[in-house]
Amino acid sequence: MTPTITAFEQSPDRGRGLARDMRVRWALEEAGQPYAVRLVSFSEMKKPAHLALHPFGQIPTYEEGGLALFESGAIVFHIAERHPGLLPDAANGRARAITWMFAALNTVEPPILDRGIAMILEHDKPWFEARLPVLDERVRVRLGELSRRLGAADWLDDAFSAGDLLMVTVLRRLSGSTLLDEYPNLVGYVARGEARPAYQRAFADQLAVFTAGDASRGRNG
Amino acid sequence: MTPTITAFEQSPDRGRGLARDMRVRWALEEAGQPYAVRLVSFSEMKKPAHLALHPFGQIPTYEEGGLALFESGAIVFHIAERHPGLLPDAANGRARAITWMFAALNTVEPPILDRGIAMILEHDKPWFEARLPVLDERVRVRLGELSRRLGAADWLDDAFSAGDLLMVTVLRRLSGSTLLDEYPNLVGYVARGEARPAYQRAFADQLAVFTAGDASRGRNG
Repeated sequence: MTPTITAFEQSPDRGRGLARDMRVRWALEEAGQPYAVRLVSFSEMKKPAHLALHPFGQIPTYEEGGLALFESGAIVFHIAERHPGLLPDAANGRARAITWMFAALNTVEPPILDRGIAMILEHDKPWFEARLPVLDERVRVRLGELSRRLGAADWLDDAFSAGDLLMVTVLRRLSGSTLLDEYPNLVGYVARGEARPAYQRAFADQLAVFTAGDASRGRNG
Repeated sequence: MTPTITAFEQSPDRGRGLARDMRVRWALEEAGQPYAVRLVSFSEMKKPAHLALHPFGQIPTYEEGGLALFESGAIVFHIAERHPGLLPDAANGRARAITWMFAALNTVEPPILDRGIAMILEHDKPWFEARLPVLDERVRVRLGELSRRLGAADWLDDAFSAGDLLMVTVLRRLSGSTLLDEYPNLVGYVARGEARPAYQRAFADQLAVFTAGDASRGRNG
Protein backbone atom coordinates (compact mmCIF):
# COMPACT_ATOMS: atom_id res chain seq x y z
CA MET A 1 0.00 0.00 0.00
CA THR A 2 1.46 3.36 -1.08
CA PRO A 3 1.50 5.78 1.85
CA THR A 4 0.21 9.34 1.56
CA ILE A 5 1.98 12.19 3.29
CA THR A 6 0.90 15.79 3.68
CA ALA A 7 2.97 18.89 2.87
CA PHE A 8 2.41 22.64 2.71
CA GLU A 9 0.44 23.88 -0.28
CA GLN A 10 2.56 27.04 0.03
CA SER A 11 5.68 26.36 2.05
CA PRO A 12 6.96 29.38 4.01
CA ASP A 13 10.52 28.36 3.05
CA ARG A 14 9.78 28.77 -0.70
CA GLY A 15 10.98 25.24 -1.47
CA ARG A 16 14.33 25.36 0.31
CA GLY A 17 13.70 21.99 1.92
CA LEU A 18 13.27 23.34 5.45
CA ALA A 19 9.66 22.20 5.95
CA ARG A 20 9.33 18.97 7.86
CA ASP A 21 7.88 16.97 5.00
CA MET A 22 11.46 17.06 3.61
CA ARG A 23 12.56 14.64 6.34
CA VAL A 24 9.85 12.16 5.45
CA ARG A 25 10.38 12.51 1.69
CA TRP A 26 14.12 11.92 2.17
CA ALA A 27 13.53 8.83 4.31
CA LEU A 28 11.08 7.39 1.78
CA GLU A 29 13.59 8.01 -1.02
CA GLU A 30 16.39 6.33 0.97
CA ALA A 31 14.06 3.38 1.43
CA GLY A 32 13.10 3.37 -2.25
CA GLN A 33 9.42 3.62 -1.39
CA PRO A 34 6.92 5.39 -3.63
CA TYR A 35 4.49 7.73 -1.90
CA ALA A 36 1.66 10.11 -2.63
CA VAL A 37 1.54 13.73 -1.46
CA ARG A 38 -1.55 15.65 -0.43
CA LEU A 39 -0.97 19.39 -0.18
CA VAL A 40 -2.80 21.31 2.54
CA SER A 41 -3.33 25.03 3.01
CA PHE A 42 -2.75 26.82 6.32
CA SER A 43 -6.48 27.15 6.87
CA GLU A 44 -7.11 23.46 6.11
CA MET A 45 -4.42 22.48 8.63
CA LYS A 46 -6.48 23.89 11.48
CA LYS A 47 -9.78 22.29 10.42
CA PRO A 48 -11.28 19.14 11.98
CA ALA A 49 -10.40 16.80 9.10
CA HIS A 50 -6.69 17.57 9.37
CA LEU A 51 -6.74 17.85 13.18
CA ALA A 52 -8.09 14.29 13.26
CA LEU A 53 -4.84 13.24 11.57
CA HIS A 54 -2.57 15.71 13.36
CA PRO A 55 -3.76 17.02 16.73
CA PHE A 56 -1.32 19.95 16.55
CA GLY A 57 -2.49 21.05 13.09
CA GLN A 58 0.84 20.71 11.32
CA ILE A 59 2.48 18.80 8.50
CA PRO A 60 3.64 16.16 7.73
CA THR A 61 1.21 13.37 8.38
CA TYR A 62 1.52 9.80 7.13
CA GLU A 63 -1.39 7.56 6.16
CA GLU A 64 -1.00 3.94 5.18
CA GLY A 65 -4.05 1.71 5.18
CA GLY A 66 -5.63 2.02 8.61
CA LEU A 67 -2.60 3.70 10.15
CA ALA A 68 -2.32 7.48 10.58
CA LEU A 69 0.86 8.99 12.07
CA PHE A 70 2.17 12.50 12.66
CA GLU A 71 5.49 13.98 13.89
CA SER A 72 8.31 13.85 11.35
CA GLY A 73 10.61 11.99 13.76
CA ALA A 74 8.05 9.26 14.39
CA ILE A 75 7.29 8.90 10.69
CA VAL A 76 10.98 8.66 9.77
CA PHE A 77 11.38 6.01 12.47
CA HIS A 78 8.35 4.10 11.16
CA ILE A 79 9.90 4.04 7.68
CA ALA A 80 13.35 3.17 9.06
CA GLU A 81 11.98 0.20 11.00
CA ARG A 82 10.28 -1.28 7.96
CA HIS A 83 12.87 -0.81 5.22
CA PRO A 84 16.63 -1.37 5.03
CA GLY A 85 19.07 1.50 4.78
CA LEU A 86 18.17 3.80 7.66
CA LEU A 87 19.00 1.78 10.78
CA PRO A 88 21.85 -0.69 11.39
CA ASP A 89 20.91 -4.36 11.76
CA ALA A 90 23.03 -4.90 14.89
CA ALA A 91 21.09 -4.16 18.10
CA ASN A 92 23.61 -1.81 19.69
CA GLY A 93 24.24 0.16 16.52
CA ARG A 94 20.50 0.43 16.00
CA ALA A 95 19.99 1.78 19.53
CA ARG A 96 22.75 4.34 18.99
CA ALA A 97 21.22 5.50 15.69
CA ILE A 98 17.87 5.96 17.44
CA THR A 99 19.69 7.96 20.14
CA TRP A 100 20.92 10.35 17.46
CA MET A 101 17.36 10.70 16.15
CA PHE A 102 16.20 11.90 19.57
CA ALA A 103 19.33 14.03 20.04
CA ALA A 104 18.69 15.81 16.74
CA LEU A 105 15.10 16.63 17.64
CA ASN A 106 15.25 17.16 21.39
CA THR A 107 18.75 18.55 22.05
CA VAL A 108 20.07 20.20 18.87
CA GLU A 109 16.88 21.46 17.23
CA PRO A 110 15.32 23.40 20.16
CA PRO A 111 17.93 26.21 20.37
CA ILE A 112 18.04 26.40 16.56
CA LEU A 113 14.25 26.64 16.35
CA ASP A 114 14.23 29.17 19.19
CA ARG A 115 16.58 31.38 17.26
CA GLY A 116 14.49 30.94 14.13
CA ILE A 117 11.28 31.91 15.95
CA ALA A 118 12.95 35.04 17.34
CA MET A 119 14.24 36.00 13.88
CA ILE A 120 10.68 35.88 12.55
CA LEU A 121 8.54 37.08 15.46
CA GLU A 122 10.85 39.34 17.45
CA HIS A 123 13.13 41.00 14.91
CA ASP A 124 11.27 44.30 15.30
CA LYS A 125 11.13 44.19 19.10
CA PRO A 126 13.25 46.61 21.12
CA TRP A 127 15.06 43.72 22.85
CA PHE A 128 15.97 41.79 19.69
CA GLU A 129 19.51 43.16 19.41
CA ALA A 130 20.24 42.31 23.04
CA ARG A 131 18.77 38.79 22.87
CA LEU A 132 20.25 37.63 19.57
CA PRO A 133 23.80 37.06 20.90
CA VAL A 134 22.32 34.95 23.72
CA LEU A 135 20.35 32.86 21.24
CA ASP A 136 23.41 32.52 19.00
CA GLU A 137 25.50 31.36 21.92
CA ARG A 138 22.99 28.66 22.87
CA VAL A 139 23.18 27.34 19.31
CA ARG A 140 27.00 27.52 19.34
CA VAL A 141 27.20 25.43 22.51
CA ARG A 142 25.31 22.60 20.81
CA LEU A 143 27.15 22.95 17.51
CA GLY A 144 30.50 22.88 19.32
CA GLU A 145 29.57 19.70 21.18
CA LEU A 146 28.25 18.07 18.02
CA SER A 147 31.35 19.11 16.07
CA ARG A 148 33.66 17.61 18.70
CA ARG A 149 31.76 14.32 18.65
CA LEU A 150 31.65 14.09 14.85
CA GLY A 151 35.38 14.87 14.51
CA ALA A 152 36.67 13.67 11.15
CA ALA A 153 33.99 11.01 10.68
CA ASP A 154 31.56 11.04 7.79
CA TRP A 155 28.50 10.24 9.92
CA LEU A 156 27.63 10.33 13.63
CA ASP A 157 27.90 6.60 14.24
CA ASP A 158 29.57 4.52 11.55
CA ALA A 159 27.25 4.32 8.49
CA PHE A 160 24.61 6.87 7.47
CA SER A 161 21.40 6.38 9.47
CA ALA A 162 18.06 7.99 10.25
CA GLY A 163 19.94 9.83 13.02
CA ASP A 164 22.10 11.56 10.41
CA LEU A 165 19.06 12.21 8.23
CA LEU A 166 17.32 14.10 11.04
CA MET A 167 20.49 15.85 12.22
CA VAL A 168 21.27 17.15 8.73
CA THR A 169 17.74 18.54 8.35
CA VAL A 170 18.02 20.19 11.78
CA LEU A 171 21.37 21.82 10.91
CA ARG A 172 20.00 23.02 7.58
CA ARG A 173 17.58 25.22 9.53
CA LEU A 174 20.63 27.46 10.16
CA SER A 175 20.99 28.14 6.44
CA GLY A 176 19.92 31.76 6.88
CA SER A 177 22.83 32.45 9.27
CA THR A 178 26.60 32.03 9.28
CA LEU A 179 26.69 30.09 12.56
CA LEU A 180 27.31 26.73 10.94
CA ASP A 181 30.30 28.11 9.02
CA GLU A 182 32.21 28.29 12.31
CA TYR A 183 32.29 24.47 12.32
CA PRO A 184 33.82 23.25 9.03
CA ASN A 185 33.30 19.57 9.82
CA LEU A 186 29.57 20.21 10.31
CA VAL A 187 29.44 22.11 7.00
CA GLY A 188 31.00 19.05 5.34
CA TYR A 189 28.57 16.77 7.17
CA VAL A 190 25.54 18.67 5.90
CA ALA A 191 27.03 18.71 2.38
CA ARG A 192 27.47 14.92 2.48
CA GLY A 193 23.81 14.58 3.41
CA GLU A 194 22.71 16.93 0.65
CA ALA A 195 24.84 15.04 -1.88
CA ARG A 196 22.97 11.77 -1.37
CA PRO A 197 20.82 10.89 -4.39
CA ALA A 198 17.81 10.24 -2.15
CA TYR A 199 18.16 13.71 -0.64
CA GLN A 200 18.37 15.27 -4.08
CA ARG A 201 15.24 13.50 -5.32
CA ALA A 202 13.34 14.55 -2.20
CA PHE A 203 14.57 18.13 -2.48
CA ALA A 204 13.58 18.38 -6.14
CA ASP A 205 10.12 17.07 -5.35
CA GLN A 206 9.40 19.54 -2.58
CA LEU A 207 10.83 22.38 -4.69
CA ALA A 208 8.57 21.37 -7.58
CA VAL A 209 5.53 21.97 -5.36
CA PHE A 210 6.66 25.55 -4.91
CA THR A 211 7.81 26.30 -8.44
CA ALA A 212 4.82 24.67 -10.08
CA GLY A 213 2.46 26.52 -7.77
CA ASP A 214 0.10 23.72 -8.64
CA ALA A 215 -1.62 22.45 -5.52
CA SER A 216 -3.07 19.44 -7.25
CA ARG A 217 0.03 17.32 -7.64
CA GLY A 218 3.53 16.53 -6.37
CA ARG A 219 5.91 14.26 -8.30
CA ASN A 220 4.40 11.18 -6.74
CA GLY A 221 0.93 12.39 -5.97
CA MET B 1 23.04 -7.32 33.16
CA THR B 2 21.87 -4.48 35.41
CA PRO B 3 22.07 -1.15 33.57
CA THR B 4 23.63 1.94 35.13
CA ILE B 5 22.12 5.36 34.61
CA THR B 6 23.50 8.76 35.56
CA ALA B 7 21.67 11.49 37.48
CA PHE B 8 22.52 14.86 39.00
CA GLU B 9 24.52 14.74 42.22
CA GLN B 10 22.69 17.94 43.12
CA SER B 11 19.56 18.32 41.04
CA PRO B 12 18.54 21.93 40.34
CA ASP B 13 14.91 20.93 40.92
CA ARG B 14 15.63 19.86 44.53
CA GLY B 15 14.12 16.41 43.98
CA ARG B 16 10.82 17.45 42.41
CA GLY B 17 11.21 14.86 39.66
CA LEU B 18 11.80 17.39 36.88
CA ALA B 19 15.30 16.23 35.94
CA ARG B 20 15.41 13.91 32.96
CA ASP B 21 16.65 10.88 34.88
CA MET B 22 13.07 10.74 36.25
CA ARG B 23 11.82 9.59 32.84
CA VAL B 24 14.30 6.75 32.71
CA ARG B 25 13.74 5.73 36.34
CA TRP B 26 9.99 5.66 35.74
CA ALA B 27 10.35 3.54 32.59
CA LEU B 28 12.63 1.08 34.38
CA GLU B 29 10.15 0.82 37.25
CA GLU B 30 7.25 0.23 34.82
CA ALA B 31 9.35 -2.52 33.26
CA GLY B 32 10.23 -3.96 36.67
CA GLN B 33 13.94 -3.70 35.91
CA PRO B 34 16.55 -3.08 38.60
CA TYR B 35 19.18 -0.49 37.84
CA ALA B 36 22.19 1.23 39.35
CA VAL B 37 22.61 4.99 39.59
CA ARG B 38 25.85 6.90 39.30
CA LEU B 39 25.58 10.50 40.44
CA VAL B 40 27.61 13.13 38.60
CA SER B 41 28.45 16.71 39.52
CA PHE B 42 28.05 19.62 37.11
CA SER B 43 31.82 19.83 36.67
CA GLU B 44 32.13 16.08 36.00
CA MET B 45 29.40 16.33 33.34
CA LYS B 46 31.61 18.53 31.18
CA LYS B 47 34.76 16.39 31.52
CA PRO B 48 36.03 13.93 28.88
CA ALA B 49 34.92 10.76 30.72
CA HIS B 50 31.29 11.88 30.80
CA LEU B 51 31.42 13.53 27.38
CA ALA B 52 32.48 10.16 25.97
CA LEU B 53 29.12 8.83 27.20
CA HIS B 54 27.08 11.96 26.48
CA PRO B 55 28.43 14.32 23.82
CA PHE B 56 26.23 17.16 25.11
CA GLY B 57 27.44 16.81 28.71
CA GLN B 58 24.05 16.11 30.27
CA ILE B 59 22.24 13.43 32.22
CA PRO B 60 20.85 10.81 31.97
CA THR B 61 23.07 8.27 30.29
CA TYR B 62 22.44 4.51 30.15
CA GLU B 63 25.15 1.86 30.18
CA GLU B 64 24.45 -1.82 29.78
CA GLY B 65 27.32 -4.14 28.90
CA GLY B 66 28.97 -2.72 25.80
CA LEU B 67 26.11 -0.35 25.04
CA ALA B 68 26.14 3.33 26.03
CA LEU B 69 23.12 5.53 25.25
CA PHE B 70 22.11 9.11 26.01
CA GLU B 71 18.92 11.19 25.48
CA SER B 72 16.07 10.37 27.82
CA GLY B 73 13.66 9.72 24.94
CA ALA B 74 16.01 7.22 23.31
CA ILE B 75 16.68 5.45 26.61
CA VAL B 76 12.97 5.19 27.42
CA PHE B 77 12.41 3.77 23.94
CA HIS B 78 15.23 1.27 24.41
CA ILE B 79 13.64 0.06 27.65
CA ALA B 80 10.15 0.04 26.10
CA GLU B 81 11.30 -2.10 23.18
CA ARG B 82 12.82 -4.74 25.43
CA HIS B 83 10.24 -5.11 28.19
CA PRO B 84 6.45 -5.39 28.21
CA GLY B 85 4.23 -2.62 29.55
CA LEU B 86 5.39 0.48 27.71
CA LEU B 87 4.43 -0.17 24.07
CA PRO B 88 1.41 -2.00 22.63
CA ASP B 89 2.06 -5.33 20.93
CA ALA B 90 -0.05 -4.50 17.86
CA ALA B 91 1.98 -2.81 15.13
CA ASN B 92 -0.32 0.18 14.54
CA GLY B 93 -0.82 0.89 18.24
CA ARG B 94 2.91 0.63 18.76
CA ALA B 95 3.58 3.15 15.95
CA ARG B 96 1.03 5.55 17.45
CA ALA B 97 2.59 5.27 20.91
CA ILE B 98 6.00 6.08 19.40
CA THR B 99 4.39 9.06 17.66
CA TRP B 100 3.31 10.40 21.06
CA MET B 101 6.87 9.95 22.34
CA PHE B 102 8.17 12.22 19.60
CA ALA B 103 5.22 14.62 19.99
CA ALA B 104 5.96 15.01 23.70
CA LEU B 105 9.62 15.81 23.12
CA ASN B 106 9.56 17.69 19.82
CA THR B 107 6.19 19.51 19.78
CA VAL B 108 4.97 19.96 23.36
CA GLU B 109 8.23 20.28 25.29
CA PRO B 110 9.99 23.02 23.26
CA PRO B 111 7.62 25.91 24.15
CA ILE B 112 7.47 24.69 27.76
CA LEU B 113 11.26 24.53 27.99
CA ASP B 114 11.53 27.90 26.28
CA ARG B 115 9.33 29.45 28.92
CA GLY B 116 11.35 27.71 31.64
CA ILE B 117 14.64 29.01 30.25
CA ALA B 118 13.25 32.56 30.14
CA MET B 119 11.99 32.27 33.75
CA ILE B 120 15.51 31.39 34.88
CA LEU B 121 17.78 33.39 32.57
CA GLU B 122 15.69 36.41 31.59
CA HIS B 123 13.52 37.20 34.61
CA ASP B 124 15.67 40.23 35.45
CA LYS B 125 15.85 41.53 31.88
CA PRO B 126 13.95 44.69 30.94
CA TRP B 127 11.95 42.79 28.29
CA PHE B 128 10.83 39.92 30.51
CA GLU B 129 7.40 41.37 31.33
CA ALA B 130 6.66 41.98 27.67
CA ARG B 131 7.83 38.55 26.50
CA LEU B 132 6.22 36.36 29.15
CA PRO B 133 2.66 36.62 27.76
CA VAL B 134 4.00 35.60 24.34
CA LEU B 135 5.76 32.58 25.84
CA ASP B 136 2.66 31.68 27.83
CA GLU B 137 0.51 31.86 24.72
CA ARG B 138 2.81 29.51 22.81
CA VAL B 139 2.46 27.00 25.64
CA ARG B 140 -1.33 27.48 25.74
CA VAL B 141 -1.65 26.73 22.03
CA ARG B 142 -0.02 23.32 22.52
CA LEU B 143 -1.88 22.58 25.75
CA GLY B 144 -5.19 23.45 24.10
CA GLU B 145 -4.50 21.13 21.18
CA LEU B 146 -3.38 18.34 23.49
CA SER B 147 -6.40 18.84 25.74
CA ARG B 148 -8.78 18.61 22.78
CA ARG B 149 -7.16 15.39 21.59
CA LEU B 150 -7.12 13.77 25.02
CA GLY B 151 -10.78 14.65 25.69
CA ALA B 152 -12.22 12.40 28.38
CA ALA B 153 -9.77 9.55 27.79
CA ASP B 154 -7.37 8.32 30.45
CA TRP B 155 -4.38 8.12 28.12
CA LEU B 156 -3.44 9.50 24.71
CA ASP B 157 -4.00 6.29 22.77
CA ASP B 158 -5.85 3.52 24.52
CA ALA B 159 -3.62 2.01 27.25
CA PHE B 160 -0.79 3.79 29.11
CA SER B 161 2.39 3.82 27.02
CA ALA B 162 5.86 5.32 26.84
CA GLY B 163 4.18 8.18 24.97
CA ASP B 164 2.14 9.01 28.06
CA LEU B 165 5.17 8.57 30.29
CA LEU B 166 7.11 11.20 28.34
CA MET B 167 4.11 13.52 27.93
CA VAL B 168 3.38 13.50 31.68
CA THR B 169 7.01 14.36 32.48
CA VAL B 170 6.91 17.18 29.92
CA LEU B 171 3.68 18.63 31.37
CA ARG B 172 5.10 18.41 34.89
CA ARG B 173 7.73 20.98 33.85
CA LEU B 174 4.87 23.51 34.13
CA SER B 175 4.51 22.80 37.86
CA GLY B 176 5.88 26.23 38.77
CA SER B 177 3.07 27.98 36.85
CA THR B 178 -0.73 27.91 36.75
CA LEU B 179 -0.92 27.33 32.98
CA LEU B 180 -1.83 23.67 33.24
CA ASP B 181 -4.73 24.48 35.59
CA GLU B 182 -6.57 26.02 32.64
CA TYR B 183 -6.96 22.49 31.22
CA PRO B 184 -8.64 20.27 33.83
CA ASN B 185 -8.40 17.11 31.75
CA LEU B 186 -4.63 17.59 31.47
CA VAL B 187 -4.40 18.11 35.24
CA GLY B 188 -6.21 14.80 35.68
CA TYR B 189 -3.96 13.16 33.09
CA VAL B 190 -0.80 14.20 34.93
CA ALA B 191 -2.33 13.07 38.23
CA ARG B 192 -3.06 9.63 36.74
CA GLY B 193 0.56 9.35 35.71
CA GLU B 194 1.80 10.43 39.13
CA ALA B 195 -0.51 7.91 40.81
CA ARG B 196 1.09 4.93 39.11
CA PRO B 197 3.11 2.83 41.56
CA ALA B 198 6.09 2.82 39.19
CA TYR B 199 6.04 6.62 39.06
CA GLN B 200 5.91 6.81 42.84
CA ARG B 201 8.87 4.47 43.29
CA ALA B 202 10.90 6.43 40.75
CA PHE B 203 9.94 9.74 42.34
CA ALA B 204 10.89 8.54 45.83
CA ASP B 205 14.25 7.32 44.57
CA GLN B 206 15.21 10.59 42.88
CA LEU B 207 13.98 12.55 45.92
CA ALA B 208 16.10 10.38 48.19
CA VAL B 209 19.22 11.50 46.32
CA PHE B 210 18.38 15.08 47.22
CA THR B 211 17.22 14.56 50.82
CA ALA B 212 20.04 12.21 51.70
CA GLY B 213 22.57 14.55 50.16
CA ASP B 214 24.61 11.40 49.92
CA ALA B 215 26.29 11.23 46.56
CA SER B 216 27.44 7.66 47.01
CA ARG B 217 24.15 5.81 46.59
CA GLY B 218 20.61 5.83 45.17
CA ARG B 219 18.05 3.23 46.15
CA ASN B 220 19.37 0.83 43.56
CA GLY B 221 22.95 1.97 43.27
